[in-house]
Amino acid sequence: MSRYFTPALRKLEPYVPGEQPRVQDLIKLNTNENPYPPAPGVAAAVAGAVPGLRLYSDLHCTALKSAIAAQAGVEPENILCGNGSDENLMLAIRAFCDADHPLAFADVTYGFYPVWCDLFGIPQHIIPLAEDFSLDPAAYCGLGETVVIANPNAPTGRWVAPAALERVVQTNPDNVVIIDEAYVDFCDEAPENASCVPLTKKYDNLLVVRTFSKSRSMAGVRLGYCVGSAALIADLDRVKFSLNPYNVDSLAQAAGAAAMQDKAYFAQTTAAIRAARSWTAEMLGGLGFTVLPSQANFVFAKTPKMGGEALYKALREQKILVRHFAAPRTKDWLRITVGTPEQMQALQTALREILA
Amino acid sequence: MSRYFTPALRKLEPYVPGEQPRVQDLIKLNTNENPYPPAPGVAAAVAGAVPGLRLYSDLHCTALKSAIAAQAGVEPENILCGNGSDENLMLAIRAFCDADHPLAFADVTYGFYPVWCDLFGIPQHIIPLAEDFSLDPAAYCGLGETVVIANPNAPTGRWVAPAALERVVQTNPDNVVIIDEAYVDFCDEAPENASCVPLTKKYDNLLVVRTFSKSRSMAGVRLGYCVGSAALIADLDRVKFSLNPYNVDSLAQAAGAAAMQDKAYFAQTTAAIRAARSWTAEMLGGLGFTVLPSQANFVFAKTPKMGGEALYKALREQKILVRHFAAPRTKDWLRITVGTPEQMQALQTALREILA
Repeated sequence: MSRYFTPALRKLEPYVPGEQPRVQDLIKLNTNENPYPPAPGVAAAVAGAVPGLRLYSDLHCTALKSAIAAQAGVEPENILCGNGSDENLMLAIRAFCDADHPLAFADVTYGFYPVWCDLFGIPQHIIPLAEDFSLDPAAYCGLGETVVIANPNAPTGRWVAPAALERVVQTNPDNVVIIDEAYVDFCDEAPENASCVPLTKKYDNLLVVRTFSKSRSMAGVRLGYCVGSAALIADLDRVKFSLNPYNVDSLAQAAGAAAMQDKAYFAQTTAAIRAARSWTAEMLGGLGFTVLPSQANFVFAKTPKMGGEALYKALREQKILVRHFAAPRTKDWLRITVGTPEQMQALQTALREILA
Repeated sequence: MSRYFTPALRKLEPYVPGEQPRVQDLIKLNTNENPYPPAPGVAAAVAGAVPGLRLYSDLHCTALKSAIAAQAGVEPENILCGNGSDENLMLAIRAFCDADHPLAFADVTYGFYPVWCDLFGIPQHIIPLAEDFSLDPAAYCGLGETVVIANPNAPTGRWVAPAALERVVQTNPDNVVIIDEAYVDFCDEAPENASCVPLTKKYDNLLVVRTFSKSRSMAGVRLGYCVGSAALIADLDRVKFSLNPYNVDSLAQAAGAAAMQDKAYFAQTTAAIRAARSWTAEMLGGLGFTVLPSQANFVFAKTPKMGGEALYKALREQKILVRHFAAPRTKDWLRITVGTPEQMQALQTALREILA
């Protein structure tokens, strides 16, 4: 830290993203990337955007918002596009929390929520998950605080039905409830039953956060969106226009619209990941692992035979990279991204060898 | 504004970007975009990045930083890449100012500086430019405040030699001096004499902010970078990793590296703009305009024959879009982006007709 750095931020503990090694022959199952490439139409869409790059990107992401709105069954005014879900979550926490308006979230969930709270001076109300890492919506009812719930949750993979979350939204009418649905497209339920997006039409205090990083195979494009009432979206735009208005570049806008339009590819790749997830959960169970029921593109698992950190290291020696979180409640567990069937078979082979 | 919006930000006046009409036959001279497309190598670089988009982008922008560092004559540790200069300026103001550390800047300069100050609760020390819109570096010497100077300045186009700015850096040893060089590549001076980048090796409190939006013809890519001491860059990274770590997508990283490597195209396009700027300044002078000496890719000009707003509207009717700033000191003036020779000839024709 230089001596010029503002004293106000000196105690910040920045977020630590999962490792992104530039090693070619590693099986990378640590940051929940999709094993399949982006939809075939993305390449042409991106190429088509290159000649226009001399001009600023569309501030309002018009074509992209239309594509998203059509898919989500809402209007473009209900959509905000951002430079990744991280930016959108940051904008929402900045807009709807402050020193007098705490943020409530689970003890085991996305590790960035407390970082934004620290940055913005927002008190944290941390609500422990149950012993089995399930989230009890009742613990969030009538809180009178801004709420963020990742659903499915990470790193656990557990999912709560929207009907159960609706009570949280209903009973906190004076506060915004943010549902972070980064992984919701991997649910076994049909989209209209898996996601809280349909509820945004009913409740003006519900904001749903979605991303192109996971189910749309474009973590490298840094593109996410929020769905909510026009008034909530306008609030987020107000912060965005005070921070970085041209936040989504022209290439990302083109890529996002193309990815959103290819429904067949999306259905095919998410189905393949769901199938590989089932296979992986059974495989791990067969090897003696405890595996949480996952509705995401990863599984959270532990084995009585070996601690989480030791197994993480042993897998790494076999060139398989998974994620280990050293906190007390998660230290025995590993979060393993669901890859291709071949990658999951390689995981099985490695685990058999390590645990033999 | 919804009733959920934090009271702390209700008085914010968000930044108002220049109009981005999606009209095909408009001559767009209002937001200082480059009239030439990106370097020819950008298309292939972007296409090459598409298959890898399923993976997160490189957090550390390794290849891009190497390309920039080689061009700037510094090390990669002296570079921070961001989602446009706006993001980098925002990070710097957040890192080096707070309620007790004001930001000093000119009364007529980039309109976003006061917006960030308001957002972050930073006092503003506004220092008026001289009557002729020139900036006197002496007014910034020994201030004991964080300083930001746009050089060349916008919307004036006026430029101060780095030797004169060095005194500002020297006499504020306990504060960071930010030089916003969005337009510096259009200076008539050779790069090593036009830019403050070489001074970053001598002063650990100097931060230079640069962009790919103007001279690199990629406003749509949202890519900028800072150059400074490794300690200052680490401070900015600290804020970035608390806000939005994956801020530069893989397509932008590829595009930026390719653009930076094509020195011939850069030399050719910036020279063409400098030539068109000279022609435009003379043309406007011939029509009776007062034209400030510009080292940017725009000119700031006024005519005694017509007010700024009236002329802006008259040009718009002729399908030429320029920028008018309604503030008291600038209301008589227009900021006109330098386009192709053909576009500037069309401007001449329109002005002759309007002012006849």
